[in-house]
This record gives sequence, C-alpha cells and structure tokens, in this order.
Amino acid sequence: MSSPRLLLSTALLALSLTTATAQAAEPDRNTPAPMTAAQIIAAAPASAWRTPDPDNLLYMQLPGGLVVIELAPQFAPRHVANIRQLARQGFWDGLSVYRVQDNFVAQFGDALADDPASARPLGAAATALPAEFEVASGSVAFTALPDPDGWSDAAGFVDGFAAARDHQSATTWMAHCYGMVGAGRNNAPDSSQGAELYVVIGQAPRNLDRNMSAVGRVIHGIEHLSALPRGPEPMGFYPQRSQDTPIASIQLASSLPPEQRLPLQVLRTDSASFAAATEARRNRRDAFYRRPAGHIDLCNIPLPSRLASAP
Amino acid sequence: MSSPRLLLSTALLALSLTTATAQAAEPDRNTPAPMTAAQIIAAAPASAWRTPDPDNLLYMQLPGGLVVIELAPQFAPRHVANIRQLARQGFWDGLSVYRVQDNFVAQFGDALADDPASARPLGAAATALPAEFEVASGSVAFTALPDPDGWSDAAGFVDGFAAARDHQSATTWMAHCYGMVGAGRNNAPDSSQGAELYVVIGQAPRNLDRNMSAVGRVIHGIEHLSALPRGPEPMGFYPQRSQDTPIASIQLASSLPPEQRLPLQVLRTDSASFAAATEARRNRRDAFYRRPAGHIDLCNIPLPSRLASAP
Repeated sequence: MSSPRLLLSTALLALSLTTATAQAAEPDRNTPAPMTAAQIIAAAPASAWRTPDPDNLLYMQLPGGLVVIELAPQFAPRHVANIRQLARQGFWDGLSVYRVQDNFVAQFGDALADDPASARPLGAAATALPAEFEVASGSVAFTALPDPDGWSDAAGFVDGFAAARDHQSATTWMAHCYGMVGAGRNNAPDSSQGAELYVVIGQAPRNLDRNMSAVGRVIHGIEHLSALPRGPEPMGFYPQRSQDTPIASIQLASSLPPEQRLPLQVLRTDSASFAAATEARRNRRDAFYRRPAGHIDLCNIPLPSRLASAP
Repeated sequence: MSSPRLLLSTALLALSLTTATAQAAEPDRNTPAPMTAAQIIAAAPASAWRTPDPDNLLYMQLPGGLVVIELAPQFAPRHVANIRQLARQGFWDGLSVYRVQDNFVAQFGDALADDPASARPLGAAATALPAEFEVASGSVAFTALPDPDGWSDAAGFVDGFAAARDHQSATTWMAHCYGMVGAGRNNAPDSSQGAELYVVIGQAPRNLDRNMSAVGRVIHGIEHLSALPRGPEPMGFYPQRSQDTPIASIQLASSLPPEQRLPLQVLRTDSASFAAATEARRNRRDAFYRRPAGHIDLCNIPLPSRLASAP
C-alpha cells in the first residue's frame, strides 16, 4: 500500500530520530525532506477514503453554515436509531443551540426540555433508552496506536472514530475528543434519548468517557458550533432564548435528494496512509520543528475529511 | 493548610474508590457526598490565592471585552522583557488578531510584519532574541502530578503555569495547554521577538512544547479570543485585513492607575486546595459520574482565577 516515497520517509525518520531527540540537530540539507502529514494525505489512494453511509449522516443547518455529523451505530445503536427517528420527524427544526461553554461543549436540542408543559414531544421516538457507554471489544475492529494513553489501556480508532479500550472488562468506547457528539443526560445513566446532544469544542474531556452515550462526531463545519458566543451562565447556558443560535433543520442525508448531499469522504483510520500521516505528526521532520515529540495523543490526531470531486 | 472539611473529603474519596473503579457502584446515600472541585475552591483559604505582579499582566482590549495575560519571566525572561517594552510603547494599539485557526490558536500582532515596507517598527524593543524553549529544572519550583504524561517524564505546575520536564536533560518547559501564550516565529528558533503572539484555543498542541518560546497564559477573558470567527485560509488567516479583530490597546497593568486594575487573583498551584480540587476532578464522586477516571491530564486541570472583593 505504501508508496516508495512513504517508505523512504519512514526510513529517514527512524535514522534521524536518534540525534533529533538527543539534541535539536540541524536537519541534513542533503537528504530530501520526508513527506508531511498533509502531503501523505494528499497522496493517499482512493481506497484509503470512505464515503459514509447517508443513513449515518446528520445535516444540521445553522445560521453560520452546514454542520455534518457522522453517527456511530457501532457504539450506540439504540441512540442512533432514535436520532434517525427524531431527524425524520423534524424534531430539531426550529430548536436551538442553547449552551456553549468555553473549552468544553456546545449543546443543542430543546431548551425547554425540562419543562413538561413547554417541551417539544418526542413523537414516535423512544422516550427511554438504555445507557450505551461502551461495547464489547470483540464487536468492533480497533486499530490501536502505539502511544500510551493515560485514560485507558489502549487508544486507537474504530471506523474513523477515536476510541479507547479496557483490557480487563474487554470493553471499547468512543473517546471524548474534539468534535465528538454525545447524548446529554440527567444523573440517571439511562436518562438520555438522543434529543439533547453535545459536541466537544475544547480540550478533550476524557473524564466523560464511559459515563456518556457517545453517538458520533462532527466531520464537517464544526466551526459553526465552536466559534459561537459563549453562554454567560456558569455552564455556558444562555439566560435568554433570544440568545440561542437557531437550528433551521437537522435532516438525515438519506432523506435528502442525492443532488443535495455533499460528496463527503473521510480518510479510513485503518489505512496505511492514515498510519503514515499519524507517524509524520508524531515525529515532525519539517524545518520548523526542532524537537519531534516522539508521541502523539489520541485526540491530537486529525481525522481528515474531504469533498470528493463529482464522479 | 487544609481545613477539616477538605481532609474529610479526601478520606471519603480514598474509601470509595475501590468499589467505584471495580464497577459503577451506586453511591452510598448514607455517607455525605465528598466536596466537588468547585466546593473545594470556594472554600480555599485566602493564603491559597495569589495576586499576580502587575508588571506581569497584559491588559488586552478587544471589541468583545478584556483579555488578561499573565507573563512568565521564569520561563522566557528575554521575551517577557521585550513584551513589556512593546506594551509600554503601545506597539499593539491599533493592530489586530489576524489569525484564528479552529481547534488550534488565535494569533495577534502586526498582520503586515512580513512586509518591511509596511511593518510597524519595534522601536526600542529588541529585534533579535534567543530561543527560550526550556529552562534548567533547578531554576523553577515544580509541583508534579502523579499522573503519567505521554509527552514528557513528568507533568505539573510552576507558579500557576502548566509545565512538563525531562529528567535526562534536567529541563522544564511551559506546556501548550488551553490558554497558553507563545511567541510566533519563522523556521529559525531565534526568530521571535514577542511581537506576534498566539494563544492556544483548542486541544493542547503539546507537539509544540520545547519548540516555541512560551511567554505566559490567559487568566481572564479567553472567550473574547476563542469564540472569534475562524479564518477561512488554511492556517486560519483572514484574507482581508477588514476581517481582523482590532486590538484597541495592550497595556501592562503596572502602567495603569491602580483603580483601573482588576482585583484578579489566581489559585496557587502549590496549595493544598489546588491539590484537593485536582483529586476531586481525577475521581469525580458526584451523582452524575458513574465511573471516576482515576486519571487526569495536565491540560484538563482548570487553573482557577477570581475577582477578589475590594479590600
């Protein structure tokens, strides 16, 4: 799978690491520079890219633009089924982003959900779901990172989602990295329906791992959520509903005519290109970096997406 | 230093951890709930709080409000001296935030710095400074965390700044956590003057540790930077200067009359209260959390600040 240039880049990297970590050595100007992560991704073969199932894509229309969320039924099948039902009903249309807490989350849904008299009905969607905090490790294909993870026994990826696992319990869960989408709940673990969703917009709050039902991640347009004004109340809520950001609609891509769908693709996290790009980030070899880190954190690894050219 | 209530909370925590990590046990409703991090911080004695030196505080006036940066001469003395000189000259007044890259940094200074014909002169400030990427570990008081850090031999805090260290080289550096302020540079390590500064507004880019001169951190008002519109160019630059966010002024607090200074205090990172609050975050024991993490990442630990009541 790897091109000769990628192999060369990896070899150079191994060669240069010894001196680079011992001291900030000047790069040898006579050897070609190894490929950067961006170059590796640009050179990735078509087979390294995946087109998400339109039944797993939510299109969220905000005033700033389109946000696309890829749902993860492999981690939260019951929640994802309910979210699909809610989207088909137009549940979120006209509702809002009612909470933006700096360095933490943007949350959306029904700002009046806690008031039975004003809450929007869930319609045909389930009103009670089990907690879906983790899954049996045997049920998912996990591509492990070699890097240690302070929060778990192993960090890696499952089908494009950052994930972590525990060996003793043989469980795997989606990790709370930037862009992860989770189901808000009350104190009871089974109190989420998938109607109130939050998106991580800050330093990964991995302490929430295994405490929340994670349902997907933003693959396009997260800046339309992450740059929203922070709510002034302690947890980032807006005191006035007029301060909320309105949601025009949230629809499943599969409900849209094909010509209204974006040709979105995501890089396969089990591809050689993704592994090579991650290694290029773990040990940056461009002229800017004086000291390659020799390590990368699960949540520091970008998950590339692109708009494919029309067929 | 610890109040009896703090000690009780720590004892309860140790007691309850065994069952909590073995399985998500229901909390025992007969024992009082341990104090949360917020409660511990609210109960911290006056001695746990520190009033930063006004000569180390930058007041940055943006359209959205005031941003306050605490400078760290213990990590970058030459850069901090130059930044003080630039602030006294009013160097940044009328300049701008010209780059905001999602999940990475907001950068400010002179958008035309690369054009000698248009660049604002540095005046009496130095135009060349040495790289200040790390300091001798013996020169700073380091409060180590017990938690492993994938990026270094030990993570912890120095005088309120998140930091990390390498044992072999006996060096310590400020870590690129949310809110950290660093000096932008070109490829040469010694190409920064402290005139172009960046603030981390996303997942901690720890790969930049030991590659940049870190000069301080935002202790107040970071939301006036982190919620700015993202620049549409690849690295978050704005194509038009009219899209920049103007900086009315950046002044040293020591240059302001005392009545114009905020009564800002920061929690001492070497205090018992900070250690107890960190432990309460490492192992959350409130009714919401089903599985305490048993770990915390350096950059997940909030560094509390407050506005003290007038004396």
